[in-house]
Amino acid sequence: MQLGMIGLGRMGGNIVRRLTRAGHECVVFDQNPATVKSLVGDRIHGGSNLPDLVKRLAKPRTVWVMLPAGEITEQTVNELGSLLEKGDTIIDGGNAFFHDDVRRARAMKDKGIHYIDCGTSGGVWGLERGYCLMIGGEKEVVDRLDPIFGALAPGTGSIERTPGREKRDPRVERGYLYCGPSGAGRFVKMVHNGIEYGIMQAYAEGFEIMQKAASKEVPAERRYQLDLADIAEVWRRGSVISSWLLDLTAMSLAQDPTLANFSGVVEDSGEGRWTVNAAVEEAVPADVLSAALYARFRSRDPHATANKLLSAMRHAFGGHIEPK
Amino acid sequence: MQLGMIGLGRMGGNIVRRLTRAGHECVVFDQNPATVKSLVGDRIHGGSNLPDLVKRLAKPRTVWVMLPAGEITEQTVNELGSLLEKGDTIIDGGNAFFHDDVRRARAMKDKGIHYIDCGTSGGVWGLERGYCLMIGGEKEVVDRLDPIFGALAPGTGSIERTPGREKRDPRVERGYLYCGPSGAGRFVKMVHNGIEYGIMQAYAEGFEIMQKAASKEVPAERRYQLDLADIAEVWRRGSVISSWLLDLTAMSLAQDPTLANFSGVVEDSGEGRWTVNAAVEEAVPADVLSAALYARFRSRDPHATANKLLSAMRHAFGGHIEPK
Amino acid sequence: MQLGMIGLGRMGGNIVRRLTRAGHECVVFDQNPATVKSLVGDRIHGGSNLPDLVKRLAKPRTVWVMLPAGEITEQTVNELGSLLEKGDTIIDGGNAFFHDDVRRARAMKDKGIHYIDCGTSGGVWGLERGYCLMIGGEKEVVDRLDPIFGALAPGTGSIERTPGREKRDPRVERGYLYCGPSGAGRFVKMVHNGIEYGIMQAYAEGFEIMQKAASKEVPAERRYQLDLADIAEVWRRGSVISSWLLDLTAMSLAQDPTLANFSGVVEDSGEGRWTVNAAVEEAVPADVLSAALYARFRSRDPHATANKLLSAMRHAFGGHIEPK
Amino acid sequence: MQLGMIGLGRMGGNIVRRLTRAGHECVVFDQNPATVKSLVGDRIHGGSNLPDLVKRLAKPRTVWVMLPAGEITEQTVNELGSLLEKGDTIIDGGNAFFHDDVRRARAMKDKGIHYIDCGTSGGVWGLERGYCLMIGGEKEVVDRLDPIFGALAPGTGSIERTPGREKRDPRVERGYLYCGPSGAGRFVKMVHNGIEYGIMQAYAEGFEIMQKAASKEVPAERRYQLDLADIAEVWRRGSVISSWLLDLTAMSLAQDPTLANFSGVVEDSGEGRWTVNAAVEEAVPADVLSAALYARFRSRDPHATANKLLSAMRHAFGGHIEPK
Repeated sequence: MQLGMIGLGRMGGNIVRRLTRAGHECVVFDQNPATVKSLVGDRIHGGSNLPDLVKRLAKPRTVWVMLPAGEITEQTVNELGSLLEKGDTIIDGGNAFFHDDVRRARAMKDKGIHYIDCGTSGGVWGLERGYCLMIGGEKEVVDRLDPIFGALAPGTGSIERTPGREKRDPRVERGYLYCGPSGAGRFVKMVHNGIEYGIMQAYAEGFEIMQKAASKEVPAERRYQLDLADIAEVWRRGSVISSWLLDLTAMSLAQDPTLANFSGVVEDSGEGRWTVNAAVEEAVPADVLSAALYARFRSRDPHATANKLLSAMRHAFGGHIEPK
Repeated sequence: MQLGMIGLGRMGGNIVRRLTRAGHECVVFDQNPATVKSLVGDRIHGGSNLPDLVKRLAKPRTVWVMLPAGEITEQTVNELGSLLEKGDTIIDGGNAFFHDDVRRARAMKDKGIHYIDCGTSGGVWGLERGYCLMIGGEKEVVDRLDPIFGALAPGTGSIERTPGREKRDPRVERGYLYCGPSGAGRFVKMVHNGIEYGIMQAYAEGFEIMQKAASKEVPAERRYQLDLADIAEVWRRGSVISSWLLDLTAMSLAQDPTLANFSGVVEDSGEGRWTVNAAVEEAVPADVLSAALYARFRSRDPHATANKLLSAMRHAFGGHIEPK
Repeated sequence: MQLGMIGLGRMGGNIVRRLTRAGHECVVFDQNPATVKSLVGDRIHGGSNLPDLVKRLAKPRTVWVMLPAGEITEQTVNELGSLLEKGDTIIDGGNAFFHDDVRRARAMKDKGIHYIDCGTSGGVWGLERGYCLMIGGEKEVVDRLDPIFGALAPGTGSIERTPGREKRDPRVERGYLYCGPSGAGRFVKMVHNGIEYGIMQAYAEGFEIMQKAASKEVPAERRYQLDLADIAEVWRRGSVISSWLLDLTAMSLAQDPTLANFSGVVEDSGEGRWTVNAAVEEAVPADVLSAALYARFRSRDPHATANKLLSAMRHAFGGHIEPK
Repeated sequence: MQLGMIGLGRMGGNIVRRLTRAGHECVVFDQNPATVKSLVGDRIHGGSNLPDLVKRLAKPRTVWVMLPAGEITEQTVNELGSLLEKGDTIIDGGNAFFHDDVRRARAMKDKGIHYIDCGTSGGVWGLERGYCLMIGGEKEVVDRLDPIFGALAPGTGSIERTPGREKRDPRVERGYLYCGPSGAGRFVKMVHNGIEYGIMQAYAEGFEIMQKAASKEVPAERRYQLDLADIAEVWRRGSVISSWLLDLTAMSLAQDPTLANFSGVVEDSGEGRWTVNAAVEEAVPADVLSAALYARFRSRDPHATANKLLSAMRHAFGGHIEPK
């Protein structure tokens, strides 16, 4: 099949590569012309701007938008809305807020344009490992684009099959899922990332407990000098908590056992926040997912007003003076 | 009555002052002789060391220990155990761990010495406001020492009476409570402090949400420049969250509206930790009390291993580079 | 002054009473005619519907809306928008979401109608104790309505003055505060309630730790039978955690020491959720406020999917069978 | 090698099976004679009691204790301490508290008996998948028993190798690790389980957010009926959060999509608590690990005193009546 791709960053570029390796054809655009140029090749054609990209696609067109959430995605979808025609399809593969998908899909529907939200997990490994796809929108459109999704997904590979799935949709085992109407794919991807934050924080806390087992707050006879890299490695083997994130942890610790390359300031990219908001809206107690998000907030402003106020109160009632 | 006092810091010195103002007599000791000297006066006699202090007291003696939790309290109680005699009483008024009270009381009992644990709240305000006392140990001994506790407690003052307490022990309304056997007083004081951490953190988070209401993460039309000092003040009047800690907050913010005097590094002094441990032992979900404690931990080591590991994982799966 | 009041529930009715006691005049409406009838009296006139209420007010009119957040408030404000005239004022005193205030104020402004958001704390005690008011909107309008706000607020009363406020607006010490433009008053009230949840949960956890100190999970020598009612009472006196919520706790426990009247299912009324959403938007770590909210969610669906999934995993990896 | 095994439950029995399949020889004991009888066979001999088991082992003997943490393990180790001789070794493979290991190792050392703590992960899958072993105690003893540990561990299998480990101990990649002196192995296993709780809770919260995405609290246009079994499956493929626990989740949901077999009451088995205690001792903020533990506590007593107190306060200040 033929696909237009807008946005050739870490994700967009590799998606194009994986698609064309599978025999599909892509027309690509990025605001940086050099990026476009470096990608053009077998089955990959460059567009010089959005109208040009659209012009180069055969009808019904499919254009994948892979840009940062927010203003730039909004503008691009709107511009595509005026360039595309009835029967064409926009796939947004970025990390938008699912409310925005619902809104955009409705706006595009008024013009006869299909809008598909496709949560895309896999990061920098997706080119080789394949992308886990969570897809929302009109089912018929998603079915029609099956070759695209199937090519991007990992396939069954060597992962053991789950018993009891015999009568279920086999595509799921190949790594892509139609989740439901507009926003459903992105919603599932959002929760995926929320869980990701929680799992990461669980490992992070555990490894810090092990690292500080040697600290002076602990009585001498129970202090341990533990080798975090070895521990991460051994847990990959037969333990209950083996995971892909643990594989990456073992890799990072093998290369940099004290994590000296990292500052301890951690960003978040939106989905963790939206997951908390969704939990609050649904009255789901999301203690772990929230705590994981807040730990990142704290890393970025550790000596914020809240903490100063604690010290102010401590000084006021007890005369306590904090260390600097 | 007569009382020996060991430890003349912010708490011990004022306890002696409040007791002697009420007509009691004190023999005092501190490892700093200048502190002893400065306190000696009407009804206050200095002891030059523990044996001397004990010698100056009439039998049955009562000695109040008001020292930091830990080694120094342990040593002092042990030394008193060898200096005091059958029928004498040790009151520990500090912030010990209640397990230690249980153990010490048992050790002293073997020598015929009574051991009373007296959780003492009130901070630097206790001299004028009175101390809230939570007392554990043998009931007869606590009853015998009633004049001491009654003099230290705030009394009924102008605080409105709680309906329905007519048939209950009136001493409670004067601000002191016999809580139960050894350790019970300290346990109640420990939980008091655990709650204190939780309440402080609730205010701290709320005030930070108001302070950051003007931040750029918020869309312009909903940004507010709020006056934290005025807000603290208005909440003292008729709101559901009026409290003594809020009074102190209003005072601190009136003097230093941006809390510029404080670094944002916050210490903890043991009781918050023990409260969490008690909760865990009893299988009580203490989410708020734990979170309040952890916020202080984070303030002291914000860029710890845990956060670095998050960044390492983010880099490994997504190529993300954190800001420094 | 003259005020129209729409909604005569626990809050609205008492606000009318307090205002008219202070010499103001009210025209009132409630969807339940019996409620209107029972309130009508000295300086209180009934309106038979919204148009009638509006007709009975002299220009420029002021109408206070005191209804549950949501659809009913939305409709009422909209209807008032078509009944009122340029220069009239709507005060919304309920617990709306502050985004809605921003939106409504803008819509009313287009018609020349002023819209004031007035966060109102005090609950069933407000009639006697006064209401703490947090006010947002156009400053000139708020200043013009000062007699209304001043009459509702508690006044300085016997509460000790905060040092350092000499040069600040004295109205704050009487219990009402102009917080800023539209939504600012409600925002402050929202955070007030968020803090309220946190403080309540801090006490709740602490009291449960004390109640379960007698549980069998604790070794026998450290089990305590603590009297929660007495403890709440003693903490009112000289302790660091004395507060109005503690006064109420002492009252509740004196009447019902085992809290047998309560089911342990706890509702939330919106503000706690919005506070968490605001924290997330501003990147403020609100661990305590979130945990307090989630504890309520859990009380309403304790054996939800999340917990079942934990059991499913425990069974899958360890063969564990949970108790029923 | 030859090994005595005491305790033939889900773990002990399978450890014996895996060891003897690898050519080792076992003498086994369980308090239930039928269990012993059913296991006896090729290279597996039964002991009729502890003295008999010890008698059947050649010196220097090695006895593995695989019993529930607590009294029974304590008694068994003590009895072994009087039956074994200088140079013999006790391995405790259960989930003891690491403080107890430190204490027991010291007591055994006085008798010349070696004491090894061996954290053992793998659950009911260990027989086929192998056990991840985290070992503490004297290094020479652990090295001497290498054939035992090597046979129990999973081996390298088909798991991809971590780059950068070329110069490190290859045994780690086979799934067993010498962690350090007494207690170190158990400490690492304890943290492993603490992390396990956190990861499980992260998934649990995420799946509940997806399940309740269809709830009435959500506006109709954003409600989704999501298929949890399919989502678990698709995440196994190429997503960032693929893990063994997710494999089990997919399996459970494929068999029982609504988790109807589970009550939603979740037990904990000690390690989660000890992990929190260790974090508190070291001043590590363990928000996620604590929250995961507390969620289980709440599932077992959801309408506890804490919640009733919240309702009591809500009633006292606002007249709120909770639903039953």
